[in-house]
Amino acid sequence: MHILFLRESYKNSSIRYMFKINENYLHLSRSYLFSTISKKVDEFALSNPNADIIRLGIGDVTQPLSPSVIDSMHKSVDEMSRKETFRGYGPEQGYKFLREKIATTDFQKRGVKIDADEIFISDGSKSDTGNICDILGDSNTIAITNPVYPVYLDTTIMRLGNSNNLMLLECNEENGFLPDIPVKSIDVVYLCYPNNPTGTVMNRIKLKQWVDWALYNNSLILFDAAYEAYIKDDEIPKSIFEIENAENCAIEFRSFSKNAGFTGLRCSYTVVPKALKTMSSNGEKQSLNMLWGRRQATKFNGAPYIVQRAAEAVYSIEGQKEVGDFISYYMNNADVIRNGLIKKGWTVYGGENAPYIWLKCPDENDSWSFFDQLLEKCHIVGTPGVGFGSNGEGFFRLTAFNSYEKTVEAVERINTHL
Amino acid sequence: MHILFLRESYKNSSIRYMFKINENYLHLSRSYLFSTISKKVDEFALSNPNADIIRLGIGDVTQPLSPSVIDSMHKSVDEMSRKETFRGYGPEQGYKFLREKIATTDFQKRGVKIDADEIFISDGSKSDTGNICDILGDSNTIAITNPVYPVYLDTTIMRLGNSNNLMLLECNEENGFLPDIPVKSIDVVYLCYPNNPTGTVMNRIKLKQWVDWALYNNSLILFDAAYEAYIKDDEIPKSIFEIENAENCAIEFRSFSKNAGFTGLRCSYTVVPKALKTMSSNGEKQSLNMLWGRRQATKFNGAPYIVQRAAEAVYSIEGQKEVGDFISYYMNNADVIRNGLIKKGWTVYGGENAPYIWLKCPDENDSWSFFDQLLEKCHIVGTPGVGFGSNGEGFFRLTAFNSYEKTVEAVERINTHL
Repeated sequence: MHILFLRESYKNSSIRYMFKINENYLHLSRSYLFSTISKKVDEFALSNPNADIIRLGIGDVTQPLSPSVIDSMHKSVDEMSRKETFRGYGPEQGYKFLREKIATTDFQKRGVKIDADEIFISDGSKSDTGNICDILGDSNTIAITNPVYPVYLDTTIMRLGNSNNLMLLECNEENGFLPDIPVKSIDVVYLCYPNNPTGTVMNRIKLKQWVDWALYNNSLILFDAAYEAYIKDDEIPKSIFEIENAENCAIEFRSFSKNAGFTGLRCSYTVVPKALKTMSSNGEKQSLNMLWGRRQATKFNGAPYIVQRAAEAVYSIEGQKEVGDFISYYMNNADVIRNGLIKKGWTVYGGENAPYIWLKCPDENDSWSFFDQLLEKCHIVGTPGVGFGSNGEGFFRLTAFNSYEKTVEAVERINTHL
Repeated sequence: MHILFLRESYKNSSIRYMFKINENYLHLSRSYLFSTISKKVDEFALSNPNADIIRLGIGDVTQPLSPSVIDSMHKSVDEMSRKETFRGYGPEQGYKFLREKIATTDFQKRGVKIDADEIFISDGSKSDTGNICDILGDSNTIAITNPVYPVYLDTTIMRLGNSNNLMLLECNEENGFLPDIPVKSIDVVYLCYPNNPTGTVMNRIKLKQWVDWALYNNSLILFDAAYEAYIKDDEIPKSIFEIENAENCAIEFRSFSKNAGFTGLRCSYTVVPKALKTMSSNGEKQSLNMLWGRRQATKFNGAPYIVQRAAEAVYSIEGQKEVGDFISYYMNNADVIRNGLIKKGWTVYGGENAPYIWLKCPDENDSWSFFDQLLEKCHIVGTPGVGFGSNGEGFFRLTAFNSYEKTVEAVERINTHL
């Protein structure tokens, strides 16, 4: 550290300089998928003012928050109005009342050994899957799938730039959109199952192969389980920590967005096991739990108290029932889309343990021409698969998050007009 | 970017590797100031179970949220309970209704040209003052004051490590705890006024010198104005953008924590002017507003809708009056402490346009021995100045955030026992 004794005028100094940006940002693609889509949809709506457009594009929920969550928030808002019950700064890692509920309900009761001090509450999985790079070295090789949720790609570019250290794991029809185990050197891999965008899932055997690979190679798996609530099949693990020894090689991201409808309320959590360690260049073992705790304590101030109380309500008996109802509602929509398209003879992935249906564009259409057809002929908005990576070309994503009525109508329109 | 074709077994591969952490974290100090304090206080409380401890240490508010904020939250919680008014994902930059209120009330009505699209709503100034480093290059020289709010130091170490690029701007009694203009090469400087921890402020002339310096040198000022609401003196700018041309060299951080008591509710905003640009190495001008927008869209999903509605209520006529009452309440406490200590003949900084009183420890005590005396003789907790940097040695911070009754009692105890 440098100490300045500053006396003379800076204008006498010959030094001129200019502050620098993180130039990795210049490698990001400029046009964001969803803004391109919304521009196209806006133009269509303008020239077709009477079209009743059904949106099956963005993965946002539509059902309102459930009664237990609403009740709990009214109560905690009232607490904030009285001096005796007012809450200021909370613990950066989250309130114990919530961390303990999570540890017991989502893990211990399912036979998975995760403790409350391995849970970090935050404002969203998007934040955490992005910010996790803060604690990782920038010489790591990082792998993402192709196709992929764009946040992992952009986050990695922000960290690594247009570097050879960013690797793509190919997912395609041949491997059922599940990446093969890498043979090349990879330090960190993002895996998201149930998958966004393909709706595919990893069964216990496949996920164990990844854990074994990571353990053998001292690699880190960043496991995004934001859609775990949609898993119906018992053979599909809801958490990577259901796999033996995964606590030595994985961090898991979970969210209240897609199970309890918190997309506008913002609450999620990240599991960083105390067992997860790696070696620093001085030969010392470093705990990722400690590092992430330090990161959060420095750059985050906890999720709002009322939001953490809302999340706590999700774990009440009533709350758990309500979550079950949400999931059934959306998965019924997924069935409607999936079965409708299969009946039409189309090739469909996902939609069985995930709210996303990944379809092969019929008639050898590419993703964007199918997007145009669907919008023009059926007035339906979806997401072109190619927007998630080159392997998405010729594929298309539909989501189960609209209302039942609109979903049924969408499938009818597809049957009639395509 | 690398594409992998993965066929052979990874166990046949001779490559073994190990994922790496961000080793800059190893340069962070291990014991955090406030945890050391709370350990000491806990020990004291255990051996003195009847002591009525008054806490003037941490800068957290104690008054409950005001009626307009509470009303607005109940309303928006109800909106979230109905399908027609439910809100899912909001805009990452924040809702327009809030950004527009901020732009008109906090800036335009005060004659400062800041538009709504230069305002980014977030969950806290701590997050933003830390995360802003994401968009800055790591070859920048970064300056912080000594003493300093520890987050700037830790954030900078996380980015730069124990590097010569981290510089300290000396603040001491000689310069009235206001740093001199640097002559050496500095790309980025954190300034916080009203200051935490010293409670000092920068008048228009002094702040203009900093802006002129930054413009001359193409440096960036990260201006933390979290305590602007406490400014009573008209000669003290509430925003750096009151200084001509500051929009070409500064980013400003503002918070609802200390004016409206949102420390547990989490809402703040950051102003990144569209005029703020720097050159990248390819010779192109880069807009910081665009870069921060891209960062937030990728790694953040907006503050909760109900919290943004709560912040909007702060700008109602009633809300503005309530904020005024909060500030008067705490500043009355500041007066009580400041005047009490001056009457005792102690040397005191701050407390006039800031909720922090920065006192010179009497009888040539160092910061920690004064901490012990204050705790043992008066049962009062404060913060040792040395915890904010070496120039804080021999100084001590007291905050105005306790209740009026406790504050009066604290001063009486100091008068009686010290």
